[in-house]
Amino acid sequence: MLASSAILRRQQFLIRSLGGYSNQTHAERMQATKVVAGTHFEADAETILRTITPKLDSSRHKGQAGKIAIIGGCREYTGAPYFAAISALKIGADLSHVFCTKDAATVIKSYSPEIIVHPILEESYSIKEDEKRSISAKVLAEVSKWMERFDCLVVGPGLGRDPFLLDCVSEIMKLARKSQIPIVIDGDGLFLVTNNLDLVSGYRLAVLTPNVNEYKRLVQKVLNCEVSDEGVTEELLSLARRIGGTTILRKGKSDLVSDGETVNTVSTFGSPRRCGGQGDILSGSVAVFSSWARQQTPSAEEESSGSTPNPMVLGCIAASALLRKAASVAFENKKRGTLTTDIIECLGKSLEDICPAN
Amino acid sequence: MLASSAILRRQQFLIRSLGGYSNQTHAERMQATKVVAGTHFEADAETILRTITPKLDSSRHKGQAGKIAIIGGCREYTGAPYFAAISALKIGADLSHVFCTKDAATVIKSYSPEIIVHPILEESYSIKEDEKRSISAKVLAEVSKWMERFDCLVVGPGLGRDPFLLDCVSEIMKLARKSQIPIVIDGDGLFLVTNNLDLVSGYRLAVLTPNVNEYKRLVQKVLNCEVSDEGVTEELLSLARRIGGTTILRKGKSDLVSDGETVNTVSTFGSPRRCGGQGDILSGSVAVFSSWARQQTPSAEEESSGSTPNPMVLGCIAASALLRKAASVAFENKKRGTLTTDIIECLGKSLEDICPAN
Repeated sequence: MLASSAILRRQQFLIRSLGGYSNQTHAERMQATKVVAGTHFEADAETILRTITPKLDSSRHKGQAGKIAIIGGCREYTGAPYFAAISALKIGADLSHVFCTKDAATVIKSYSPEIIVHPILEESYSIKEDEKRSISAKVLAEVSKWMERFDCLVVGPGLGRDPFLLDCVSEIMKLARKSQIPIVIDGDGLFLVTNNLDLVSGYRLAVLTPNVNEYKRLVQKVLNCEVSDEGVTEELLSLARRIGGTTILRKGKSDLVSDGETVNTVSTFGSPRRCGGQGDILSGSVAVFSSWARQQTPSAEEESSGSTPNPMVLGCIAASALLRKAASVAFENKKRGTLTTDIIECLGKSLEDICPAN
Repeated sequence: MLASSAILRRQQFLIRSLGGYSNQTHAERMQATKVVAGTHFEADAETILRTITPKLDSSRHKGQAGKIAIIGGCREYTGAPYFAAISALKIGADLSHVFCTKDAATVIKSYSPEIIVHPILEESYSIKEDEKRSISAKVLAEVSKWMERFDCLVVGPGLGRDPFLLDCVSEIMKLARKSQIPIVIDGDGLFLVTNNLDLVSGYRLAVLTPNVNEYKRLVQKVLNCEVSDEGVTEELLSLARRIGGTTILRKGKSDLVSDGETVNTVSTFGSPRRCGGQGDILSGSVAVFSSWARQQTPSAEEESSGSTPNPMVLGCIAASALLRKAASVAFENKKRGTLTTDIIECLGKSLEDICPAN
């Protein structure tokens, strides 16, 4: 039996508190809560997005709408961290930082003057064995100066797999966790985490965003079995539970989101183009939306019952919905020629369509 | 006598299986197959393009629509590999990599965050004589890590002629051939191959895309004579046969494509502008279209007769048709000011006109 009464209560609160199902019949509500009996349900993603997106208010000051940092960008990869960082800004974050290697920094800076780029990470090829300790300490000291200012880290876009660099990033993640800074983990960050589950195990402010292959490796490692086409929901619930309540956004034809308690699906049609980089838009967006969801004040009802919806789950649902909408708008214009930059250009308009600024 | 019954049968299959001549009269069909008596025929290039372009399917995942790698880009040249790589993406490939020198990498990365750039090649000026062996081994090891992931390599755009770099590229080509990865060869890659015919000799997954001068040097080297204005078809057939079934796309007012068995012409009007870089669009496009053509399942008729159309030939025909269309659309807008980037911007729309995504 997967369900417990606490889970059922929490699931129902998630639905009610977000208003998406307020006019539901009893039958519909039962359908919506089927997760507890083994199936997932379609989230009312656009309502969730509208609910968590903060009102624009001229009395607010720089930074209050979100300060995001991407940990990624190395000799080989520079596009991915840029996509994540610029997407965060295009959605409405105030500041977007990238912490990357020196090689990557100049290039990422050249993509856009909007992004603050810190050239502080190092790969093995550029340092000597006896320098590793001091360099690692220096990297950590530099990041820690900034850490408290961030609302969320995104670890992984264009990170690469250099062992020394990944060691440093492990330390950065421990530091973020100690400071209770949420972490969205994608790409090579998932490679790191899959081999070092302790980095996220039991951390409810972490989100993993695996694609088909990354999910497969996670299941093999954590559940010690192969991915099954049957019982998709139970598998995802088990995975999230086994990791200890970390939120998992399983990307695919439909995106599935679970923190081990609920399973939500976002399956509105996006685009059939699978050009590289769309995952980076998603990770940057999850960072922003989950930060916004964390800023929400729980309702009295939620407070009294202790069933506040998980902001990381809400952030995933909203980000998935927005990316799908932006991808569909971009595809409408550019068809087979649609690239990730085209989708990024549609983020603002798509957000406005779902959640008008005025 | 150039013809054989096998060639004639294969030629007719190429025509029938692609449907372009289904309503032909007997006289027209005889005209179309005149290749076997010494002339080429106009390919129904747009039908071929439509036939090989895969349907967009939302259940597919990243990489399935094509992963292309360009080997090129040195201290002098950075535009050419960018043009080839971005064209592949704009046509519909999912991932586009460039393997180039360190000097070139930063610049190519900065052109677009969509391209994954590997700064691994070296030119003689940057290394010492006694390092050459170890550096060559390192370059090869790095490329070989990636090789199996690619659907096609493009060797040559902006490669330059540094002897050490060309030696490394020869080894990369041998590796690709061993792994049965198709290779499109243009620009300085043709300089390399003309002087080292063994690199492609007998390799049916190679395509050479020579312009007037490159073709001249090939004919001199392989056929040991000067290019003739008479018997153009026979010359091209002989050249492709002598190299051993490698496909040759002879660029010109009309593009001629032959693998030694058929000769197809694409002569729809493109643009009178001859700005540098159009050949790079073509090489990137041939890589994508031929990869798509290779994914096609042969029809039962083709299977039973053993006369499957050569995917490298189909890829050349489709790429030539698309470039010509995009160039004509760009010229319509920009006239004398038309540049290669303008043509690249028209690839998506031109593809959509020929082969609608929906």
